[in-house]
Amino acid sequence: MSEYIGQGVFRVNSGVKIESYAGVAGKKEGDGPLGSHFDKVIEDSHFGKDTWEKAESRFQLEAVRLAVQKAGITKEDIDVICSGDLINQCISSTYGLKELSIPFLEIFGACSTMAEGLIISSLLIESRSAKRTVAVTSSHFSTAERQFRFPLSYGGQRTPTSQWTCTASGAVVLSDCNGLIEVAGCCIGKTADMGISDITNMGSAMAPSASETIKRYLTATSTSPSDYNYIVTGDLGTVGSELLKELLLKQNVDITSNHCDCGCMIFDTNSKDTQCGGSGCGCSASVLCSYFLPLMEKGSAENILFVATGALMSPMSIQQGGSIPSISHLVHLRRIL
Amino acid sequence: MSEYIGQGVFRVNSGVKIESYAGVAGKKEGDGPLGSHFDKVIEDSHFGKDTWEKAESRFQLEAVRLAVQKAGITKEDIDVICSGDLINQCISSTYGLKELSIPFLEIFGACSTMAEGLIISSLLIESRSAKRTVAVTSSHFSTAERQFRFPLSYGGQRTPTSQWTCTASGAVVLSDCNGLIEVAGCCIGKTADMGISDITNMGSAMAPSASETIKRYLTATSTSPSDYNYIVTGDLGTVGSELLKELLLKQNVDITSNHCDCGCMIFDTNSKDTQCGGSGCGCSASVLCSYFLPLMEKGSAENILFVATGALMSPMSIQQGGSIPSISHLVHLRRIL
Repeated sequence: MSEYIGQGVFRVNSGVKIESYAGVAGKKEGDGPLGSHFDKVIEDSHFGKDTWEKAESRFQLEAVRLAVQKAGITKEDIDVICSGDLINQCISSTYGLKELSIPFLEIFGACSTMAEGLIISSLLIESRSAKRTVAVTSSHFSTAERQFRFPLSYGGQRTPTSQWTCTASGAVVLSDCNGLIEVAGCCIGKTADMGISDITNMGSAMAPSASETIKRYLTATSTSPSDYNYIVTGDLGTVGSELLKELLLKQNVDITSNHCDCGCMIFDTNSKDTQCGGSGCGCSASVLCSYFLPLMEKGSAENILFVATGALMSPMSIQQGGSIPSISHLVHLRRIL
Repeated sequence: MSEYIGQGVFRVNSGVKIESYAGVAGKKEGDGPLGSHFDKVIEDSHFGKDTWEKAESRFQLEAVRLAVQKAGITKEDIDVICSGDLINQCISSTYGLKELSIPFLEIFGACSTMAEGLIISSLLIESRSAKRTVAVTSSHFSTAERQFRFPLSYGGQRTPTSQWTCTASGAVVLSDCNGLIEVAGCCIGKTADMGISDITNMGSAMAPSASETIKRYLTATSTSPSDYNYIVTGDLGTVGSELLKELLLKQNVDITSNHCDCGCMIFDTNSKDTQCGGSGCGCSASVLCSYFLPLMEKGSAENILFVATGALMSPMSIQQGGSIPSISHLVHLRRIL
């Protein structure tokens, strides 16, 4: 059973292990600095389908297929799958995974989805309600851009604070028995809303919630940034990352020496049009699965805080003058020695 | 800890209790047969706000406020809140609950959301990750109709198989200590898709998943329909309810004598334009909180299977020719004697 700390923070004690994982990315992500780390790079942005939405679904299914294969299991061995995505009514997940016919908890956390899926997976295993689960999510540049911003064919210019939604997916298989990495603790995010309403400046909208979550977890567990090899945020990008470090420094929490942001890592800084970096549920999910988890498995990192950051607006809420609420969920991952 | 049965089914053993609950409904629902049962009926469909979306958010916040008040606690006593809704990016939940600043697991289950929230709440408490949670959801006729079907001012005629999205919300406070009703078991739904693509016939799209979930739970727990006072489905309406009973009878499961459907209960059968009955996340949530939970608390029912049914399509997936996948989550509620 967990060790209850309160207000969304708990330690996971019964051995929730990461058994396997896989990251799949699109061409632009494959051309970036992490290109060689992905399990698979899909050159075709339609992934053989007739719409981008169906392509995104296929990315997600492919990530699950690879992670399951790497674990040496079959889909029948999975008790529950946790997934969600950015697209209206989370259709990338629903349609992508329906053929698996696995009990399905669909979640919505925007770009925080990977951490939310890992948390709910941990609850399932920690309470002995499931023995093996999958947490997965995806994003696709073309589905997200169409829905949240402009039609691609409009050819709009990108503002300096904008980020590029990654075409990518990451899937993690968790179990109560096998694996060299375990979930050691979780912090469920609170909604933060600082009144930012510019949908091309998501990093600034998300930084306050990341700051609140990190600070709450460190305080609740009486740990400091130096207890972790890396504090990995989801997709704050360059602007949001600077803001996060500033916000935490004001509270005497210094993460400057071990902070990484998946959005800053996935593209080259001189990559065309990516501006502040990558974003989308698939960004942190694929970077976690393709870079950080392998790093931990090799023994090159013992403790990581994975803090996926999500912006929870919709086109409708923005049209109605709403600001952008954000949420950041945290998962403490530990290498079993 | 739970008793693991597998494939999404588990018994809850540590005492996950329903401490309090509240149901709030709109005028049309208040005029229906359950009108006197709701904690509050809001006559104004805008609930004092300038958009329907903001009104739906307020319904949800009001349900939480009332449930928390009835429990004699404050919002600071709640560790985690689980919520979601039908509107794009679940904005009714995000914007409605953000001022509470409670750790937030946002979920998407369409009209199955109330059961999904109760399941995740149970996992949180069963694993001792939280002591007290809230599960809440809402729907609003005008927000859903605009998003999924036609602009209201278009004045389109309603087909015979259509249902009326309820303007309503229900909230449940769960805890590890107080309450006369407990969560005894859960069955996480699988996605079912029988190829139905008529968005004015949701009952038929959802009945197969309800059938699969009920059959799976009964088989896994070696129980039969007669072990339960009521088997309550979410919002199959009259057409979907008949189909569900037929589908189960073919598998020798007879629920005809104790099946109830919240969608069939919330409006008078001769109510204008409601056709097959009510629907929407708020339908089963408000009927559970205003009718069935009070019934159990009074001791008039000992065992209920609450099976909330959701259709997971989006306007985009329908426009792209997709059919309607559905999911039904089940919660076994038991009166503590």
